[in-house]
Amino acid sequence: MTPDEFRRVGHEIVDLIADYRAHVSERPVMAPCGPGHVKSQLPSTPPVSPESFEAILRDLERVVLPGLTHWQHPRFFGYFPCNGSLSSVLGDYVSSGLGVLGLAWQSSPALTELEEVTTDWVRQMVGLSEQWQGVIQDTASTSTLVALLLARERTARYALDRGGLQTVDHPLVVYTSQHCHSSVDKAALLAGFGRDHVRHVPVDDGYAMRADALSRSIERDLDTGLQPCAVVLTTGTTATTALDPVAAVCDAVERYGVWVHVDAAMAGSAMVLPECRWMWEGVERTDSIVLNPHKWLGAAFDCSVFYVRDVQHLIRVMSTTPSYLQSAADGRVKNYRDWGIPLGRRFRALKLWFLIREQGVEQLQARLRRDLANAQWLAAEVSHTPGWRVLAPVPLQTVCVRHEPAGLEGDALDRHTLAWVDRINQSGQAYLTPAVLDGRWMARVSIGAEQTEREHVEHLWRLIQEAVKGS
Amino acid sequence: MTPDEFRRVGHEIVDLIADYRAHVSERPVMAPCGPGHVKSQLPSTPPVSPESFEAILRDLERVVLPGLTHWQHPRFFGYFPCNGSLSSVLGDYVSSGLGVLGLAWQSSPALTELEEVTTDWVRQMVGLSEQWQGVIQDTASTSTLVALLLARERTARYALDRGGLQTVDHPLVVYTSQHCHSSVDKAALLAGFGRDHVRHVPVDDGYAMRADALSRSIERDLDTGLQPCAVVLTTGTTATTALDPVAAVCDAVERYGVWVHVDAAMAGSAMVLPECRWMWEGVERTDSIVLNPHKWLGAAFDCSVFYVRDVQHLIRVMSTTPSYLQSAADGRVKNYRDWGIPLGRRFRALKLWFLIREQGVEQLQARLRRDLANAQWLAAEVSHTPGWRVLAPVPLQTVCVRHEPAGLEGDALDRHTLAWVDRINQSGQAYLTPAVLDGRWMARVSIGAEQTEREHVEHLWRLIQEAVKGS
Repeated sequence: MTPDEFRRVGHEIVDLIADYRAHVSERPVMAPCGPGHVKSQLPSTPPVSPESFEAILRDLERVVLPGLTHWQHPRFFGYFPCNGSLSSVLGDYVSSGLGVLGLAWQSSPALTELEEVTTDWVRQMVGLSEQWQGVIQDTASTSTLVALLLARERTARYALDRGGLQTVDHPLVVYTSQHCHSSVDKAALLAGFGRDHVRHVPVDDGYAMRADALSRSIERDLDTGLQPCAVVLTTGTTATTALDPVAAVCDAVERYGVWVHVDAAMAGSAMVLPECRWMWEGVERTDSIVLNPHKWLGAAFDCSVFYVRDVQHLIRVMSTTPSYLQSAADGRVKNYRDWGIPLGRRFRALKLWFLIREQGVEQLQARLRRDLANAQWLAAEVSHTPGWRVLAPVPLQTVCVRHEPAGLEGDALDRHTLAWVDRINQSGQAYLTPAVLDGRWMARVSIGAEQTEREHVEHLWRLIQEAVKGS
Repeated sequence: MTPDEFRRVGHEIVDLIADYRAHVSERPVMAPCGPGHVKSQLPSTPPVSPESFEAILRDLERVVLPGLTHWQHPRFFGYFPCNGSLSSVLGDYVSSGLGVLGLAWQSSPALTELEEVTTDWVRQMVGLSEQWQGVIQDTASTSTLVALLLARERTARYALDRGGLQTVDHPLVVYTSQHCHSSVDKAALLAGFGRDHVRHVPVDDGYAMRADALSRSIERDLDTGLQPCAVVLTTGTTATTALDPVAAVCDAVERYGVWVHVDAAMAGSAMVLPECRWMWEGVERTDSIVLNPHKWLGAAFDCSVFYVRDVQHLIRVMSTTPSYLQSAADGRVKNYRDWGIPLGRRFRALKLWFLIREQGVEQLQARLRRDLANAQWLAAEVSHTPGWRVLAPVPLQTVCVRHEPAGLEGDALDRHTLAWVDRINQSGQAYLTPAVLDGRWMARVSIGAEQTEREHVEHLWRLIQEAVKGS
């Protein structure tokens, strides 16, 4: 494809995306197709000869778009928001178009240095001190895996340079809460700790980790000859956006020398609001933090920022320097390959740079405050309505609700909940993802898609009240 | 940013990229800037108020573009090529613009099913049988890490569900060659094996792993109570594109039940040519394979395809299914989150789909053959020229060369090599990355950037012959 063909088709694609975003609210939020439907419409063998772009774009419209669940839809209330703000999308367009790669500083200096600058901007925006340095990873799953590798190697004194985790004298233990994200367990298992060495500490009434229970768990392990290694706290859990008490946990574990990692994948964006920073008070005493600008803040996925205090430790654990990656600049520059798992790296800082500059901190703050207010409005409506309950505190943008009509409980209540959520999803009018809380299903209303205004939340609340009548 | 603003600025950015690609050959290949230069031109604090797109694009032109090493330049001969073909870039534009996420099949069915289709197209294109199923990962580093996790858990019989790698009776050992990529060592260390349990098997005259030496290494470990776990073979090593003998190694290790992983990150693209498939003969008997369409083939970075035969094993090791990720479709669909490390996933299949359809298999083959012929031409020129040597076989697109003038050897020869390579890089006329072979520096000429024609290789050869006179 020549640059001139790219120019022509590129304009078409920009128009296609502009139209898509302008009219996404007219589409059913959840893809109305069954398993295999998309695949059945595509040839099972690759084309031998070139096809026209007209044919490709026709299939895009005909096969792909109807097979999507639309995350940028104003009535998308599932999972957590993943806002690809259009300014950030343009930053990503520049990145893909330039096609440069960050294997080392020298392999594209601006890629590295813009990442230094933008991750430092985010650091300032969320109120972290200068002791933190950041790097962009793909997701919080990966960032948390890196954090546990760092913890493992600090406790095991760089066992990776000797016998690895296979020759430790006292097995290392990871602590997290019963409400941690699934990626914490996954990271611990992939890092080799083993399920027997992962503790899920009980939570309090607000679904936050109990520091006293954590201390007891650690003491029990020490008594049996195990070695406490890491605590993973969550600022904004997935089920209810609960806030583990960072300062209290730091107090509790100080004497044990464990690594403290904060999973603020979702709530990290909220720290751009000074009035929210109490939520992770004590964070300066932890060892690593992950927050995902690709969620609520609006950076195009993937853009997860991982902060550490001890960069030398990070590099010692993650670095490799074969001859073909050495350059004269080594030692005077950052080589971000030594800050994570992949060697090759996209120019991801551009999408963060475009977003922050085009919005300015003030506009980002205004949008987050809008969403917090919408969540408070919905929580108030629900809790004032007979037969309805808000099941957890609402510090952020997620409201956990259940319709509990008289006489319905146990499995019958679960069936009712899943049925009305499914009716809403199948209607295409809105999208919710249910979750289990205290052993019972509930509906999570996760507010914060970029296009979601008060009217869309009001609309959802009407839909919900209608949907429960269908049971 | 509204859709209409996106339309306006998006067209500007498409034009900017079209112009960049059309004129990239006029820029110095390697960024002519020193450490800190880019950073010094950018504000150290984030903007409070919104900035105009004119200001952002001005800084892009003024600060960022001059700070890049241009991977899409026709005289880029460094590392391995990373071709972001413009058709593939457009597929990525659609992906970023749609902003949908693949947490689960239901969270965007087309994202998953198009990935099934395109990875299966690639499977057919490289001549693998139907027993293989693929998934897109970010890089070969990550794919190889996943492969070693799969090996670890097969040998340790799902120790991750018990005590992990911390309670294995007989430490597990990973085997690879002295010429493996640095990511293999990194993956083994991150997976917890420990450096004491990674063997670098000696290579033959062509820098390929010796199957007999591998057998002896395994036997020695068995004698001392260790447990052989995985062999990582390379089809196309980084230093010289050497080809480890896949069939011979499979013969040698069959009785030990070890996992065999093939790192074909670079050379995997060449398997689109039937005449190259002898290079990985025996591959059907291995357990996992990684190949990077984002290298030579032309998919926009990042697009690494990881193939396994035993999908049930893969899912058992990598899966997590908390309530908030469950859906009614589970069991009837693929949930690719269970095929790799990150939970969140971009719609990466689009960039592969656009590339393959716009090019067709025939045009992709034609370009790869052009590059193979260019490498053969350069190798012949170098080896016919007095004072010059081609240091390794040239099965693919990389030519390892050294200028060895009479009387120059040892460290003086190293200084000479590094000096002339540096002169070329500093000139901005071409870009090479040197590497160490048999303890001495040499120049790798890695041919295969999309715009690189014979004339550019001829130009490089003239530059090289000029550059060595400067010493």
